[in-house]
Amino acid sequence: MDISHLSEKIHHTLSTLRYGENPPELYEPIRYIMALGGKRIRPLLVLLAAKMYDEDVEHTLLPAAAVEVFHNFTLMHDDIMDKAPLRRGQQTVHEKWNANTAILSGDVMLVRAYELLLGVEQNKLAKVLRLFSATAAEVCEGQQLDMNFELREKVSIHEYIQMITLKTAVLLGFSLKLGAILQGAPDTDAEHLKLFGDNIGIAFQLRDDLLDVYGDQNKFGKQVGGDILSDKKTFLMLTALEQANQEQLNTIISWRNRTEESITEEKVRSITSVYDQLSIRHQTEQHIDLYFHKALQHLDAIDLPEEKKSTIRGLALQLMERDS
Amino acid sequence: MDISHLSEKIHHTLSTLRYGENPPELYEPIRYIMALGGKRIRPLLVLLAAKMYDEDVEHTLLPAAAVEVFHNFTLMHDDIMDKAPLRRGQQTVHEKWNANTAILSGDVMLVRAYELLLGVEQNKLAKVLRLFSATAAEVCEGQQLDMNFELREKVSIHEYIQMITLKTAVLLGFSLKLGAILQGAPDTDAEHLKLFGDNIGIAFQLRDDLLDVYGDQNKFGKQVGGDILSDKKTFLMLTALEQANQEQLNTIISWRNRTEESITEEKVRSITSVYDQLSIRHQTEQHIDLYFHKALQHLDAIDLPEEKKSTIRGLALQLMERDS
Repeated sequence: MDISHLSEKIHHTLSTLRYGENPPELYEPIRYIMALGGKRIRPLLVLLAAKMYDEDVEHTLLPAAAVEVFHNFTLMHDDIMDKAPLRRGQQTVHEKWNANTAILSGDVMLVRAYELLLGVEQNKLAKVLRLFSATAAEVCEGQQLDMNFELREKVSIHEYIQMITLKTAVLLGFSLKLGAILQGAPDTDAEHLKLFGDNIGIAFQLRDDLLDVYGDQNKFGKQVGGDILSDKKTFLMLTALEQANQEQLNTIISWRNRTEESITEEKVRSITSVYDQLSIRHQTEQHIDLYFHKALQHLDAIDLPEEKKSTIRGLALQLMERDS
Repeated sequence: MDISHLSEKIHHTLSTLRYGENPPELYEPIRYIMALGGKRIRPLLVLLAAKMYDEDVEHTLLPAAAVEVFHNFTLMHDDIMDKAPLRRGQQTVHEKWNANTAILSGDVMLVRAYELLLGVEQNKLAKVLRLFSATAAEVCEGQQLDMNFELREKVSIHEYIQMITLKTAVLLGFSLKLGAILQGAPDTDAEHLKLFGDNIGIAFQLRDDLLDVYGDQNKFGKQVGGDILSDKKTFLMLTALEQANQEQLNTIISWRNRTEESITEEKVRSITSVYDQLSIRHQTEQHIDLYFHKALQHLDAIDLPEEKKSTIRGLALQLMERDS
C-alpha cells in the first residue's frame, strides 16, 4: 500500500470540502485553520485501517475528513483556552480574529464534522456516531483534565497518562476503529485496532515530551526546553517530582514561574541536569517502549495475514522514528 | 391533548438525562444550566407535532430533549460572546466558573445533543441528523450576524429579519418538523410545520422587541427599555432609524453609548417619544400580524382535520398572548 497515494487522496478530499459562505466571519476561520496543514495523520489512519479489509476506500474519504475537521475544531477551541498565539507558525484564530469568532467557528466545525459522517451506510451510522460522540466527549474531558492539572500542585503519573489518553490518544484509536468498521471488519479486530491506536498515541505523546528536552532542535522544529520554560507538567517533570530528593526538589521549585529572557538557558540547563541525575530520559524511553509494545501486541492479535498489517506497522515505526 | 401532561413528560425526561461525571468541572456546568429551567418550548413543539400524527410519542422524548440540550448549548456559548452576567436571574456559566469552562462544557453539550438523537429509527436517522446539523449551523450563522450588526452603522429591516430567523426562528421550525418526521408524516406536512414554526418564531421575536418598550413591566419580568438603554438594534430601533427626520435622528444619536445611571429614565423616555412620533408601535404590531398570519396559513395548509391542529394553534395564540 502506498501511503503517499492515500495522503494525496486525503489532501484532495480536504481541499474539496465546503463549510459555508455567509456570514464570511463565521466560515473564513474554518478555511484558514484547515489550510494551515499538518500531517493529516488521523484521516490516514482511517484509510490504512480500511485498506486492511477492502482495497476500495473511496467511501471512507469523507468520514476520514470528518475526523480531521473534528481534530481542527479541538485545536481552535484549545488555542483559545490555552491563550496560544501561534499554531503551526501562524497566528491562531482567536489572535487573527477574536475569541468570539474562534468559539463560534469552532462550533460550526463540530457540526460539519458530524455532517461528514452522515454518508456512512445506514446500518452502520448509529454505531459510528455513538463511537464518534463518545470519543469527542473524551477529548473534551482530556482537555479539561489538562487545564485542571495546570492549577494543581500534585499530579500522579497515572493521572497524566489518563489525561493524554483522553486528550490525544483516543482519537487516533477511534480513527483506526472507524476505518475497520466502515469496511465491516469483525468487532474484535476493530477493537484491537483501537487499542493499537490508543497505545501508539500515548507512546507518541511521551516521545513528544521527551524530544522537548532531549530532541535535536533542527529535527524537532520547536525550541528545545519549551516545556521546561513554561513549567509544563510533562511526563518527565512529573516523574522527576516523584523521585527528586530535597535538594533536587528545591532546584525545580526555585525555577518555577521564572520567565525572564535572561535566565532561559540556565533554567533549561538546571532542570535538565536534575533529569539527568534521576535518569529521567531512560525512564521515559522505557515507558515509550512499554506503550509501543502494547500497541504492537494488539496489531499482532488481529486475525489477518502480516502483509495486510505491514503498512500500519511501518507507519507506527516511522512515527516513533525507529528502525525496528 | 393536554399540554401540561406533555410538559410533565419533558420535565421528567430532562431530569433523567446523564451528561457525564468526570472531570466534574466539565459536567457540573451542564447540569447547572439545564436546571435553570425555562419554558421548554422547543421540546414541547416536537411532542405536539408528533402527537398530530400518532398518539404514542414516547420514542420522541429523547429527540425532543436533544433540541433542548442544543438550545442550552447555544445559550452557554452566546452568553460568553455577549458577556452576559445573568441568565434567568442566575449567574451565567462563564461568570460562575470561567470562559474556558463555558467553552468546553458547551462543546460537550453539543456532542450530547447529537447522542440524544441517535435512538431515532435507522431509516430516518441520516435525514434527521442532516436537518439538525443544517439548523445548528444556521443558528451559529444567526449569532454571528447578530454580533456583526452590533458593530455596523446601518442594518436593514430585511437583514434584521434574516438574522432573527437564523438565530431564533429556525430552531422552532426544526422542532416541529422533527416531531412530524419521527411519526412518518408526509414531507409536505413536515415542511408546512417547519414554516409555521419559523414564522411564529419571527413574530415571537418581534413581540419581544415590542414588549421591551411597550410591555407591562410586571408581566414582562424584565426592565422596560432595556434594549433602548443598551442601544440594541431591535426591529423598533431599525425602523425608527429608517424613517426618522433629521431632528429625530439627532435625538437618537445623541443618546447613543450613554449608560450613566442618572440618565436612564430620560433616555428611555426620549427614544420612546421618537418611536411614538413615528408610530413604531403600530408598525411593529403590523409586522407581528404579518408573520403570525403567514404561520397560520402554513398550519391551515396541513392536510389534517382541525382537531389535530387545535392544540398547536392554541399554543401559538397563547405564546402571542392573543385571544384569537
